[in-house]
Amino acid sequence: MAGIFYGIGVGPGDPELLTLKAVSVIREADVIIAPKTEKKEDSVALSIAAPYVKENVQIVKLVFPMVSDSDTLSEAWEYNKNVIVDLLKAGKKVIFLTLGDPMFYSTYIYVFRLLENCGYPIETIPGVPAFCAIGSKLGYPLVEGNDILSIIPATASPDKVDKALSVTDNVVLMKVYKNVNDIVDKLHQHNLSGQAVMISRCGLPEEEVICDLDSLKGRKINYLSTILSRRG
Amino acid sequence: MAGIFYGIGVGPGDPELLTLKAVSVIREADVIIAPKTEKKEDSVALSIAAPYVKENVQIVKLVFPMVSDSDTLSEAWEYNKNVIVDLLKAGKKVIFLTLGDPMFYSTYIYVFRLLENCGYPIETIPGVPAFCAIGSKLGYPLVEGNDILSIIPATASPDKVDKALSVTDNVVLMKVYKNVNDIVDKLHQHNLSGQAVMISRCGLPEEEVICDLDSLKGRKINYLSTILSRRG
Repeated sequence: MAGIFYGIGVGPGDPELLTLKAVSVIREADVIIAPKTEKKEDSVALSIAAPYVKENVQIVKLVFPMVSDSDTLSEAWEYNKNVIVDLLKAGKKVIFLTLGDPMFYSTYIYVFRLLENCGYPIETIPGVPAFCAIGSKLGYPLVEGNDILSIIPATASPDKVDKALSVTDNVVLMKVYKNVNDIVDKLHQHNLSGQAVMISRCGLPEEEVICDLDSLKGRKINYLSTILSRRG
Repeated sequence: MAGIFYGIGVGPGDPELLTLKAVSVIREADVIIAPKTEKKEDSVALSIAAPYVKENVQIVKLVFPMVSDSDTLSEAWEYNKNVIVDLLKAGKKVIFLTLGDPMFYSTYIYVFRLLENCGYPIETIPGVPAFCAIGSKLGYPLVEGNDILSIIPATASPDKVDKALSVTDNVVLMKVYKNVNDIVDKLHQHNLSGQAVMISRCGLPEEEVICDLDSLKGRKINYLSTILSRRG
């Protein structure tokens, strides 16, 4: 059997929101690469997929340093590449799980680049991004008609966030746990606070929905929190 | 049995990219509301879901006029509302299918608003948006790190498109069939053409991928076409 590598989006949290394709690949997997990073969502991805993982699957834990830390990066990533390529050489079906969609703000993007030219086939299976699940859950249209939707990480530079907020009609603000006070102020400034709503851990235990943005100020915000908003 | 209404995202085209939840609801549906609009994608949604539809399902075709046409709108929509509410009163499990995700540029958003306060439960089931499937298919990361992704319909006003293109890092351009010449020029102007790629009918028959943007000029572009791009 020839080795093959899969990047799989497991969706936003509910195991019923995996695609049929994701489930059938997970059921057949020999090895799951489980990243050990600061990004807490990675272990969440494995727990979401757990109902479909076969009993005797091999779990390989690897440390994928954040790409901003370029010193330790190349060494650790080269090591990871060798580990994965050895598994592929041995004919294994190796999978990498991602919360939401694999091509959308995920560690998988770097894993994909690392393996892209390694001589083994790679298949990426898209998933439902968290913001889509949030829209459906809340009955909150994400974008309609000829409107523009911008997906903005609150960790982008304040100037860039301001510029993007000033031109968009609808917004999905991600990673808001780091600077929620500033983000709430910016939404007020740009006339984007009136219909804003924050949801934490959508579809997971301890889910929380907050419509009064000002009540977020000074609070500790869960890592998996997103704000939806639209102009007006 | 009490009536219930479901809005279901069937994903981008491959019937294997429906979620488990979508499939189990489709299998149990009594009635499918099939919109008859100018938007060709609506019948595409039904063909994607076809493998899961039970044989004796009732298909109700309704005309949902575009929201810009406000004269015929209220009358036709009021009629549709009554048809659907009568089905719910009769205890039917009624579903409405949407290509991609139901809260993302879809007729379902208006159907949802129409029925929101009709006294019957509504559940919306998210789906994989086409742009996620395109990213996975092409091995094209949609957005990473602290970058901003803007989703822009090419049908927005030229000024708005310019402003959004000037501040974003990554872009998904939708509905490009209407004015592809202008869009290609704008991508050049905003230094967003170098890594741009257009895909038509992703995951469907007659899928086509075009990397040379200039070759699109003057061509007739398929309705289901999207351009991905990033700065640089």
